[in-house]
Amino acid sequence: MAGKETKHNIKKVVLAYSGGLDTSVILRWLQKNRHCEVVTFTADLGQGEELEPARKKAEMFGVKEIFVEDLREQFVKDFVFPMFRANTLYEGQYLLGTSIARPLIAQRQIEIAEAVGADAVAHGATGKGNDQVRFELAYYALKPDVTVIAPWREWDLTSRTKLLAFAEENQIPIAKDKRGEAPFSVDANLLHSSSEGKILEDPALPPDEIVFQRTISPEAAPDTPTEISIDFVHGDPVAINGVSLSPASLLTRLNELGKANGIGRLDLVENRFVGMKSRGIYETPGGTILLAAHRHMESITLDREAAHLKDSLMPKYAELIYNGFWFSPERRMLQALIDESQHFVNGQVRLKLYKGNIIVTGRESPNSLYDTRVVTFEDDEGAYNQADAQGFIRLNALRLRLSAMAGRKNT
Amino acid sequence: MAGKETKHNIKKVVLAYSGGLDTSVILRWLQKNRHCEVVTFTADLGQGEELEPARKKAEMFGVKEIFVEDLREQFVKDFVFPMFRANTLYEGQYLLGTSIARPLIAQRQIEIAEAVGADAVAHGATGKGNDQVRFELAYYALKPDVTVIAPWREWDLTSRTKLLAFAEENQIPIAKDKRGEAPFSVDANLLHSSSEGKILEDPALPPDEIVFQRTISPEAAPDTPTEISIDFVHGDPVAINGVSLSPASLLTRLNELGKANGIGRLDLVENRFVGMKSRGIYETPGGTILLAAHRHMESITLDREAAHLKDSLMPKYAELIYNGFWFSPERRMLQALIDESQHFVNGQVRLKLYKGNIIVTGRESPNSLYDTRVVTFEDDEGAYNQADAQGFIRLNALRLRLSAMAGRKNT
Amino acid sequence: MAGKETKHNIKKVVLAYSGGLDTSVILRWLQKNRHCEVVTFTADLGQGEELEPARKKAEMFGVKEIFVEDLREQFVKDFVFPMFRANTLYEGQYLLGTSIARPLIAQRQIEIAEAVGADAVAHGATGKGNDQVRFELAYYALKPDVTVIAPWREWDLTSRTKLLAFAEENQIPIAKDKRGEAPFSVDANLLHSSSEGKILEDPALPPDEIVFQRTISPEAAPDTPTEISIDFVHGDPVAINGVSLSPASLLTRLNELGKANGIGRLDLVENRFVGMKSRGIYETPGGTILLAAHRHMESITLDREAAHLKDSLMPKYAELIYNGFWFSPERRMLQALIDESQHFVNGQVRLKLYKGNIIVTGRESPNSLYDTRVVTFEDDEGAYNQADAQGFIRLNALRLRLSAMAGRKNT
Amino acid sequence: MAGKETKHNIKKVVLAYSGGLDTSVILRWLQKNRHCEVVTFTADLGQGEELEPARKKAEMFGVKEIFVEDLREQFVKDFVFPMFRANTLYEGQYLLGTSIARPLIAQRQIEIAEAVGADAVAHGATGKGNDQVRFELAYYALKPDVTVIAPWREWDLTSRTKLLAFAEENQIPIAKDKRGEAPFSVDANLLHSSSEGKILEDPALPPDEIVFQRTISPEAAPDTPTEISIDFVHGDPVAINGVSLSPASLLTRLNELGKANGIGRLDLVENRFVGMKSRGIYETPGGTILLAAHRHMESITLDREAAHLKDSLMPKYAELIYNGFWFSPERRMLQALIDESQHFVNGQVRLKLYKGNIIVTGRESPNSLYDTRVVTFEDDEGAYNQADAQGFIRLNALRLRLSAMAGRKNT
Repeated sequence: MAGKETKHNIKKVVLAYSGGLDTSVILRWLQKNRHCEVVTFTADLGQGEELEPARKKAEMFGVKEIFVEDLREQFVKDFVFPMFRANTLYEGQYLLGTSIARPLIAQRQIEIAEAVGADAVAHGATGKGNDQVRFELAYYALKPDVTVIAPWREWDLTSRTKLLAFAEENQIPIAKDKRGEAPFSVDANLLHSSSEGKILEDPALPPDEIVFQRTISPEAAPDTPTEISIDFVHGDPVAINGVSLSPASLLTRLNELGKANGIGRLDLVENRFVGMKSRGIYETPGGTILLAAHRHMESITLDREAAHLKDSLMPKYAELIYNGFWFSPERRMLQALIDESQHFVNGQVRLKLYKGNIIVTGRESPNSLYDTRVVTFEDDEGAYNQADAQGFIRLNALRLRLSAMAGRKNT
Repeated sequence: MAGKETKHNIKKVVLAYSGGLDTSVILRWLQKNRHCEVVTFTADLGQGEELEPARKKAEMFGVKEIFVEDLREQFVKDFVFPMFRANTLYEGQYLLGTSIARPLIAQRQIEIAEAVGADAVAHGATGKGNDQVRFELAYYALKPDVTVIAPWREWDLTSRTKLLAFAEENQIPIAKDKRGEAPFSVDANLLHSSSEGKILEDPALPPDEIVFQRTISPEAAPDTPTEISIDFVHGDPVAINGVSLSPASLLTRLNELGKANGIGRLDLVENRFVGMKSRGIYETPGGTILLAAHRHMESITLDREAAHLKDSLMPKYAELIYNGFWFSPERRMLQALIDESQHFVNGQVRLKLYKGNIIVTGRESPNSLYDTRVVTFEDDEGAYNQADAQGFIRLNALRLRLSAMAGRKNT
Repeated sequence: MAGKETKHNIKKVVLAYSGGLDTSVILRWLQKNRHCEVVTFTADLGQGEELEPARKKAEMFGVKEIFVEDLREQFVKDFVFPMFRANTLYEGQYLLGTSIARPLIAQRQIEIAEAVGADAVAHGATGKGNDQVRFELAYYALKPDVTVIAPWREWDLTSRTKLLAFAEENQIPIAKDKRGEAPFSVDANLLHSSSEGKILEDPALPPDEIVFQRTISPEAAPDTPTEISIDFVHGDPVAINGVSLSPASLLTRLNELGKANGIGRLDLVENRFVGMKSRGIYETPGGTILLAAHRHMESITLDREAAHLKDSLMPKYAELIYNGFWFSPERRMLQALIDESQHFVNGQVRLKLYKGNIIVTGRESPNSLYDTRVVTFEDDEGAYNQADAQGFIRLNALRLRLSAMAGRKNT
Repeated sequence: MAGKETKHNIKKVVLAYSGGLDTSVILRWLQKNRHCEVVTFTADLGQGEELEPARKKAEMFGVKEIFVEDLREQFVKDFVFPMFRANTLYEGQYLLGTSIARPLIAQRQIEIAEAVGADAVAHGATGKGNDQVRFELAYYALKPDVTVIAPWREWDLTSRTKLLAFAEENQIPIAKDKRGEAPFSVDANLLHSSSEGKILEDPALPPDEIVFQRTISPEAAPDTPTEISIDFVHGDPVAINGVSLSPASLLTRLNELGKANGIGRLDLVENRFVGMKSRGIYETPGGTILLAAHRHMESITLDREAAHLKDSLMPKYAELIYNGFWFSPERRMLQALIDESQHFVNGQVRLKLYKGNIIVTGRESPNSLYDTRVVTFEDDEGAYNQADAQGFIRLNALRLRLSAMAGRKNT
């Protein structure tokens, strides 16, 4: 049982490589300081950047095994949609856009490590954040004897100056706009973009408009609403405005719709798994629409107790994903429970998007449990016997009455 | 142990009396069919109606003991604010505006019953809804031997025509606009107004603009945002824009601010305690702002595990209130847990209100747990040792590694 | 949507018929008062009574369609074992022996009703207990338009005297020992027997030894322990002492072993779903052993968080079964979660049974997660790096430290 | 924000000192290797050892500030009893005897550190166990800038041989029976004793009888039962057999009673917070009786939903204590909820103790909610209207019926 971070004996390492300055420095640092062969893995999860430059750069650094992959469909189908079945929100607000991407990257890294015979993996996450935890829990869960290298926790490039010096010494190209320090750091994928750090650190101050990348502001959004419909099958969205779309295409389309209507911004102070509070600016235009639509779809198709059970477990499920325990037995158990509930979550939700608002305008389902005959104030043709309510109330009240009769005050 | 609904032997009944047609019919029906003395209780919970006409009418019907009370401050202070400490949402969306008002009305009815020596109470809620349950659970919890009369479940005035006929026969004045049937029914108090029934019954159709009473639409709201601040002490709001306000005054002010900015509309299909789904249109302008503000206040002042524990229990707490179990030991237990967490929820939240959006622009607290030195990407002067993360991750991963090493797949 | 209890228009009713005095009276009462054809259904769930006399009696009363079935294997395989996978205890103590049998009886009644074209079902449970709820919730869940007849809530045979008089009038044979009233009432099946009522009603008094039917007392049990082994596959027991047994045979054998060693008695005051407390004496010899064995099997095969998640949901799952919601979406969701956890719950548990005690003497599994190399106080060959503990603790402590540094007392 | 384990600059350290070989070695090691003044703290928590020898030894090592304290009453009153109010069991079985003692020791260490101006604390727990976590989480929660020294994670005395060599070099007396290695390690206090390690590591083998220290075996217990009564006030035990006793005296008496009757042994494989499974042999004679008694006391005095809410949160509460989060906001929140429920948990429980069995023989309370008039099979004088059950069932069934009518199978 090795599986330790160690400075010795690594032969080949699979690096999660973006092609940017930081992971390029890591790439060279690994080659120089760990004397090991580096395999790069660059994935398209919808972050909105070209991947081919990463390949070029890796070639330039002498990397022989270069993996560049488009994982967008897998990301949405196997990670984003399962998570949305649970109406997942971390701390009541955060749609987990960063958290849900990490397990897939880690999983592919490990698969590649197995394929190329690598004994180590490396990532570019820092030592204060959640992402290091998410990457590494997934690594260890999938390949328990893997060696994990987290350069940000290990090396001595502890300042921007040192990092740039290392880059220059090692012929790592530095884009002009990367010379100075970025005023905040960004993570992005098809589900969201997040911005944090530096100028965003003070929660007493609002973010500057320049921070936002995936959305226009509600103020800037058009004065005319956009009306859309979303079709669901077994809890997953399958079509927009009647047009069937693949998972990634559908989320892409929702992102466009959300962005155009100023939807999906979140300014949040959250609690990290590593024990501190941090402040993030999140933009999740499509996801915000999807969450609203899914809740409305469930509202007419899900049994009450099924819905309440899901709601009561959602915070736990969200916490697991946030903390990085996607590949864990407890996440699979909760997923089994959630998925069991989604069989009849079929139908259509119609929404009006307007300047940051998502307004439901209709929901219909072949599996609706909403029964007009029962609920109506009109004569219901015997569907519901009002006299039943008396017994229902009286037995629900019995324990309270017995308690009051025993002299206990119920106020 | 009597405490049954019964047609016999009632001497005096305290009726929750609005002064409207329906409860006036109930008043007369009680006098005629139950041959008992009727005491009326009319409360101002901020529903926005004059109370004196109810007194007049009661006098007209020969009622000798008439109670007309302004309960707005008590309502907000002892019911609304405690509920908001928990960030309470029923089924993820509903702010429980109707639910939270019922216990107070019932409590006062019982107190009056004790004071005037009445042996029964009556309400005007129908046999299909939640309100009958909420009223009666509270009655029984507070006075277990009380006789409860729920005319809508008992009488034969089962159609509008019969009701109007009874009214005419009994000299009950019928306002012109009450001749025809209302196109939907409304409940309102200082926290919200709800509309449901009839033209609102089909969840496939959006509500007509005419339905809304407490809010203008986002579209109709001004193009210029309104900036406000809310101060909190121990989890409760105490001031707006630096001006201290009593609980009811504060909520009234928030309602104005919300209304003016198109905030707080909700179109919901919910699950009733009596077992059916129903569709409601809710307007909670001030409450919607308050919920957002409170969450942001907690985000910098609440410990992570305290917050997560609250979040995990919130659905249960919401369900209790929705179902009518305010006066129950389990609600008090949860309240004790919630209140224990609020001691340090102090400070100020600043918000921008704009066309349905509530956008946080700042939060500050003398009890903030957000520590810039720890979270910063900059040098943190030793506040946080990044090396600790390795051990943290590795021990969190240990069980997953052992499981994988034992041959279990963690995907 | 009919589905009401009603005195009219029933053509054919399927009665859960034990052959005893009470259900015989019901049988005749249905024939006489409801003027409908009665179909009897008598099931062997291991209650320990002959079934053929029930058939004889039914024939005697002119019943044309008589169903007598041995459901023991189905009972244990599809109801008892799934429940035990969750280590289910109601209110911390009760093994739900009665509760778990009701859904199966109701399910078969409904299947028979469908098969014979009956429009109604009837049971002999009283109006104060849980069983009426369990039967009827299952009836309605499986055949929502069924008419349910619960004679004990409807008829006027409200005293023993009246019941006996009706029996005599209607040529219903009365066993000699049934002339007088039983000193307590009994329910039994392969999982347990329960005794309650009359002489057992005072919780201040212990039950008389005469009450016990399935167990000898610890005092009466042999002075020599019995050693056994139980093998599990996917969380279910499959063999005792190395001998593979069918579900019902296995539980029968465990019952013998438990009985002989004074195991499985419980004297409990519990909370009924209908709102009152009641006192029951339960004997669950085999089930008590099985619960202990299953927990020990899980202790070496279940991941920690999987186990804790199960434990946290068990009370809810137990409550569902106790309340009669076996056939509900929420029970199926929880079952999916539970079953997902049991794949590796394989191996053997060895126990010593002695005078009421169940003492584990060993557990082994091909899927054990207990890793001696890691846990050992001895040198563990690098399996676990003690230095990791420091980082683990320090990050777990971080939020507490930040809180204390912000001036909050953590005592 | 210092608060790190560090080899530098410690002036004075408070050591949790038992007087045994291991902590004596630590004492000397601190003096020699950390060049700091050592303050010893030796507490009597009922472990059953003399404390004065520890004082003597500390004096011998030149310690100037020596604290020897009897904490038994505080331990039981402020830690054990609050925990038992929740019927706390970790992983369904473990009474948390070790876990609950750690916070008190840590709290006193920190108080002493504040009093004597020490900047560090040290303990003798190893790097693989839970106790290091429990000690240190408490230290950090109470004094966030404290330096923690955990010699077992830091020093090079990594084998018994090295430890003994160090002891000899440093004139540390070695008791004859400590020369060889103990066949297992023991922790004990007034609540329990635990044994683990070495000969106990294989969960396939039963523990030898020699392991047990606090209990005789059920086989060895007398053939005659012992009958006792326990009185409770607000959920805490206050008297045995009618004799009022202080908390520690009462637990001591229960321990004697349990021991004499072979009660309280547990052989458990549990999941440690640090990520591994471990096997422990626990003896909790008095606590086992107390848990049973408290449950029975609650069974007649606690409202159903109060009891169920407690039960649903108990696993979480147990996990917190096991993991070392006694001094945390979430533990206080749960404690507030639990304590809120205990006001009426008053009365007497009578038990028969016999060869490992705890058999309830009666429970009585001035606050009993058990109402014979309601539960009785006899005529209940109108206390409960059986007709109410129909409405109760039908409305509980409504959602299931609507679901079935919408074509969903409920099996």
